[in-house]
Amino acid sequence: MASDRRAWLILALAYLRVAELESLLSRYGSVAAITALGPEELRKAGLSDEKANSIHAPDTAAVDSALAWHEEDNHHLLAFGDEAYPELLAQIPGAPLLLYVNGDIDALHLPALAIVGSRNPTAGGTRNAWQFGKHLAQQGFAIVSGLAQGIDTAAHQGALDAPGRTIAVLGHGIDRVYPAANRDLAHRIATSGALITEYPPGARPERWHFPERNRLISGLSLGTLVVEAARRSGSLITARLAAEQGREVFALPGSIHNPLARGCHELIRQGAKLVETATDILAELGPLAGHMLETTTTPAETETSSAPEPDADYDQLRKLLSHDPIGIDELERQSGLTIGELSSMLLILELHGEVEPLSGGRYSLLR
Amino acid sequence: MASDRRAWLILALAYLRVAELESLLSRYGSVAAITALGPEELRKAGLSDEKANSIHAPDTAAVDSALAWHEEDNHHLLAFGDEAYPELLAQIPGAPLLLYVNGDIDALHLPALAIVGSRNPTAGGTRNAWQFGKHLAQQGFAIVSGLAQGIDTAAHQGALDAPGRTIAVLGHGIDRVYPAANRDLAHRIATSGALITEYPPGARPERWHFPERNRLISGLSLGTLVVEAARRSGSLITARLAAEQGREVFALPGSIHNPLARGCHELIRQGAKLVETATDILAELGPLAGHMLETTTTPAETETSSAPEPDADYDQLRKLLSHDPIGIDELERQSGLTIGELSSMLLILELHGEVEPLSGGRYSLLR
Repeated sequence: MASDRRAWLILALAYLRVAELESLLSRYGSVAAITALGPEELRKAGLSDEKANSIHAPDTAAVDSALAWHEEDNHHLLAFGDEAYPELLAQIPGAPLLLYVNGDIDALHLPALAIVGSRNPTAGGTRNAWQFGKHLAQQGFAIVSGLAQGIDTAAHQGALDAPGRTIAVLGHGIDRVYPAANRDLAHRIATSGALITEYPPGARPERWHFPERNRLISGLSLGTLVVEAARRSGSLITARLAAEQGREVFALPGSIHNPLARGCHELIRQGAKLVETATDILAELGPLAGHMLETTTTPAETETSSAPEPDADYDQLRKLLSHDPIGIDELERQSGLTIGELSSMLLILELHGEVEPLSGGRYSLLR
Repeated sequence: MASDRRAWLILALAYLRVAELESLLSRYGSVAAITALGPEELRKAGLSDEKANSIHAPDTAAVDSALAWHEEDNHHLLAFGDEAYPELLAQIPGAPLLLYVNGDIDALHLPALAIVGSRNPTAGGTRNAWQFGKHLAQQGFAIVSGLAQGIDTAAHQGALDAPGRTIAVLGHGIDRVYPAANRDLAHRIATSGALITEYPPGARPERWHFPERNRLISGLSLGTLVVEAARRSGSLITARLAAEQGREVFALPGSIHNPLARGCHELIRQGAKLVETATDILAELGPLAGHMLETTTTPAETETSSAPEPDADYDQLRKLLSHDPIGIDELERQSGLTIGELSSMLLILELHGEVEPLSGGRYSLLR
């Protein structure tokens, strides 16, 4: 698409749908030819006034800004129909015309599992998301999620800790990070996996982007696992989209007294597969993922009690922690580690019951 | 059946099946006529040698013993076809020819829900069984279970505490109590509900009786709720029998890290209804139970934090308890309450987190 890059950006910025593109291509032959059309011709071809105007008089600053972004290392623009465009995503209704990717595009061609859930999960839910993310990444799956706090963060983190691949689908421009607390996590995902979005550089995290974005999370994946979710939550939208896209839906059950198990139980009643171990997911997705996967399977819970690897950085961090709460900024100052490294290490220590997170980004030692 | 009681006992002691009885009745007209037949005629009518001999030369001591038992207050013999024979039970394949009942036979004609599960449940499972038993008994259901330790005991107890009706189905003669620890519970069930068995007085709690007995637990009930159960456990047999009998199967989900949630999760995967609240059960069974039920519904969890009613007996018991463990025998001696009353009160205090049960029937105060 190199020569047509500018034309693709113009069509994508007009939010042209794939069906509209295909209809126009069959008449005019190329994306460049489409962008050369007058507004009247575009309207006659069935486009709305808004789309016709957006193509005829494009936002050249936005196009230039996207092209400038694309010049940098590991920044990719994938157009619908490109070989590198994720195959499963291309199959969904409403597939984006253009994807902005920061990272390794090979990660987009692994068999993928989405793991989604609450932004305010229980400690147990966080641990489950991390463990399923880790084990399925070890089995060769890319773990797809939305870079939100809570379950999303733990799932991405688990995949990174495997070590394995993870893909974060954003509801805003690829040059932004939201939430800000996940800046370092985003950086690490871009290094070993990919950040991906359909929104142009500079696009803000508008509320309506997130439900739209969720169709990409499920659409990139063979299946979606919901770990903990309230009723009427965004995670259930992702699960519904997965089902509509013909993908598998998995849900973890939980105590009837845990309000965040309710959404999962609702999904199970509607036909989602009840999952207890990573093996349950591998049994369903393994045949679909085929030769891309290792054959060894491990249930998620077998690692429940495994301790973090001995590591000089962890030893140093443990020495800085005590039963008196200490802020992450102070830990950064005293340890020389980055906030990102510290967040990851503190999450692992939290998952193993060594530290307790307190309000205001403070931590105290539990044992 | 009064005049034919001896004949019914003889046929029941021969373990005659309902189909065999009906075939013989169509030829010989009455149970008395059947017991008057010679062994050759009985064999010609299709009975096994063993059954024919048992009818021709009955165990008269066993018959006399059952008749003597029947003379006492609230002891009932219900023959298949009697008006008082439980209607739902009569519909199952393999319905018993004769039932021995100790208690109030009206309890056998309420809409019934079976609650079954592990003999070694978690504290949470015990609390759930008690709460569902209590709330559904308050809604007018008789709670059916098997008088075993654990979930069965908590379900019976919940129904008694409602206060409501509960039915214990035994795997042995009605003149025995098994396990011995449930002697007082059995007594209280007989007072306000019913103990019921198909085994004659004196029959021991043989291992093979319990799976057989389970078909009566499910068969008496519109539905069976499994609270906590391991894979390959007796509770799953009861659930399978319920499904085969065309009755509803309900299961409570739980944490993926709780081995006693596994049996429930297996049932849910096989199509059992996932239950979070008593309302879920009422929604299914209410229409089947019809006018026999109150219309008000209450989710089980609304009462989670309700404390026991203020009560002089409870105040007295609390004063006897301390952080030093005390045995139930000592509590009986000091309080003047019966072991049965104490067991019930201690279970309630345990469910509310006030006391902790220790080994050897000892208790200590938690707060």
